[in-house]
Amino acid sequence: MIDKLTEKIRNTHAPIVVGLDPMMDYVPEHILKAAFQEYGETLEGAAEAIWQFNKEIVDCTFDLIPAVKPQIAMYEQFGVPGLQAFQKTVEYCHKKDLIVIGDIKRGDIGSTSAAYATGHLGTVKIGSRSYHPFGEDFATVNPYLGTDGIKPFVDVCKKEKKGLFILVKTSNPSSGEFQDKLIDGRPLYELVGEKVAQWGADCMGERYSYIGAVVGATYPEMGRILRKIMPKSFILVPGYGAQGGTGADLVHFFNEDGLGAIVNSSRGIIAAYKQEAYAKFGAECFAEASRAAVEAMAKDIDHALQTAK
Amino acid sequence: MIDKLTEKIRNTHAPIVVGLDPMMDYVPEHILKAAFQEYGETLEGAAEAIWQFNKEIVDCTFDLIPAVKPQIAMYEQFGVPGLQAFQKTVEYCHKKDLIVIGDIKRGDIGSTSAAYATGHLGTVKIGSRSYHPFGEDFATVNPYLGTDGIKPFVDVCKKEKKGLFILVKTSNPSSGEFQDKLIDGRPLYELVGEKVAQWGADCMGERYSYIGAVVGATYPEMGRILRKIMPKSFILVPGYGAQGGTGADLVHFFNEDGLGAIVNSSRGIIAAYKQEAYAKFGAECFAEASRAAVEAMAKDIDHALQTAK
Repeated sequence: MIDKLTEKIRNTHAPIVVGLDPMMDYVPEHILKAAFQEYGETLEGAAEAIWQFNKEIVDCTFDLIPAVKPQIAMYEQFGVPGLQAFQKTVEYCHKKDLIVIGDIKRGDIGSTSAAYATGHLGTVKIGSRSYHPFGEDFATVNPYLGTDGIKPFVDVCKKEKKGLFILVKTSNPSSGEFQDKLIDGRPLYELVGEKVAQWGADCMGERYSYIGAVVGATYPEMGRILRKIMPKSFILVPGYGAQGGTGADLVHFFNEDGLGAIVNSSRGIIAAYKQEAYAKFGAECFAEASRAAVEAMAKDIDHALQTAK
Repeated sequence: MIDKLTEKIRNTHAPIVVGLDPMMDYVPEHILKAAFQEYGETLEGAAEAIWQFNKEIVDCTFDLIPAVKPQIAMYEQFGVPGLQAFQKTVEYCHKKDLIVIGDIKRGDIGSTSAAYATGHLGTVKIGSRSYHPFGEDFATVNPYLGTDGIKPFVDVCKKEKKGLFILVKTSNPSSGEFQDKLIDGRPLYELVGEKVAQWGADCMGERYSYIGAVVGATYPEMGRILRKIMPKSFILVPGYGAQGGTGADLVHFFNEDGLGAIVNSSRGIIAAYKQEAYAKFGAECFAEASRAAVEAMAKDIDHALQTAK
């Protein structure tokens, strides 16, 4: 799957992942109205609204991008119907040949981590039959519990040719509270980065490992160091756009081959129509605004990478 | 909710939480057969089997215990139908007046943590109506992302009178990889423990905060130190029984008032009928074996606490 990701990034010239994190505030009135008319003001109605919202954005952007990253929390808040919308979104994106990164940030130990890995990336056996419950291609994982928590995910990835992005340095302001603490003079995130490189060493695709890392765009200097600590790991970079990261901040997350990083934008793309720059599209044409925002983001990153050469 | 928990512990004389983590291996043949007959060897069939399994265990133990802790991963591995079984389990336990600790180990930032908190502990507004999607009473949370990740959960808890157990020192062998690293001479888990005490300071019930911590029974010495660092925080203690912790290990997790800790056992109770000690019950009477295992566990802990006095 990591080879498919690098190939798709090469073909689209866009190391971009669109974060499908549909907040109700983002969903235009006409979609909400239609969904509530059909299902009422219920969890099912909300789930239908976010699914229709996603579908239009995917239809308008799939040819420009390699991957999407649905944030499962935004679906889980609507209970079981919300998770049905999550699953439908994953399936639909696969039909459009997009790679799906499940932003699930799960992490537990032993058989519990194995159960999460099975549910999201693997195959569950029931009697004589097999199922792929949620069926994402990659998942984000939390490392706080150590190797016991990660290994069951890695095992499933090896078997299924899927991949992980392990949280190393997150994009939020308080990420330093624990992640930046110095241990023998070095911050915790560097130790976690070293572990990611170790865990990924025997999980190699053609050039990159399928065990990657999450490092926030808001910390470019740390990105530069982590890039060197994990040379074979793809870095998923959140925090571009709405959280404050710019194209120029991203340069050090990439290797010299122009690969090795994929940058997420959620609100900046899926709610583009609410920004002044794309207001002309209006709520009716929200998905076309998203397409324009993807094009602008690809150009911004490409410009930054060319300038840095 | 923390006051209800302490009251129920006092009434039952059992600081015990039964981990409803139904692996398919635990479910007796006759339950599997009936479920597959009705729904086929499908995700729905597996979900029905674990729900029926849970129901019988709850029916046979609810009067002895204050709380249950369903591990959501064991449900999530069966996709949407599995999560329906999770929700049904939560609802059923509430009918039996049990406190439900959702072992979800979620953790993200800002609006994403808020969405998880809403889905599991809170109220989601859809148009003019309100819903409580999964409706647990407590949730376990991962602290790796710092205060930004925890605060949205705390906010929901304040509003809804619910609670958290934040991972501090987990019970697994490799938990020390990051959690034990020394920062200015002190392990990371102590720093996290201090933060838990801070986060919990303005979330007080009668005697205890509703912001608690998770500390593994397998690390009793660390439990003793953390007990002092977080005197007002309830500690959820996994690792008893199957993972190796014994009654004597637990003493230091409690305060002098005999409260402040609640001990989880999953496999040791729900799959008790598979142990030699309870084999006489047989697979047909698996839930009665669970009842006997709860009684033995309560006795073991009570004996340890009395001996320590």
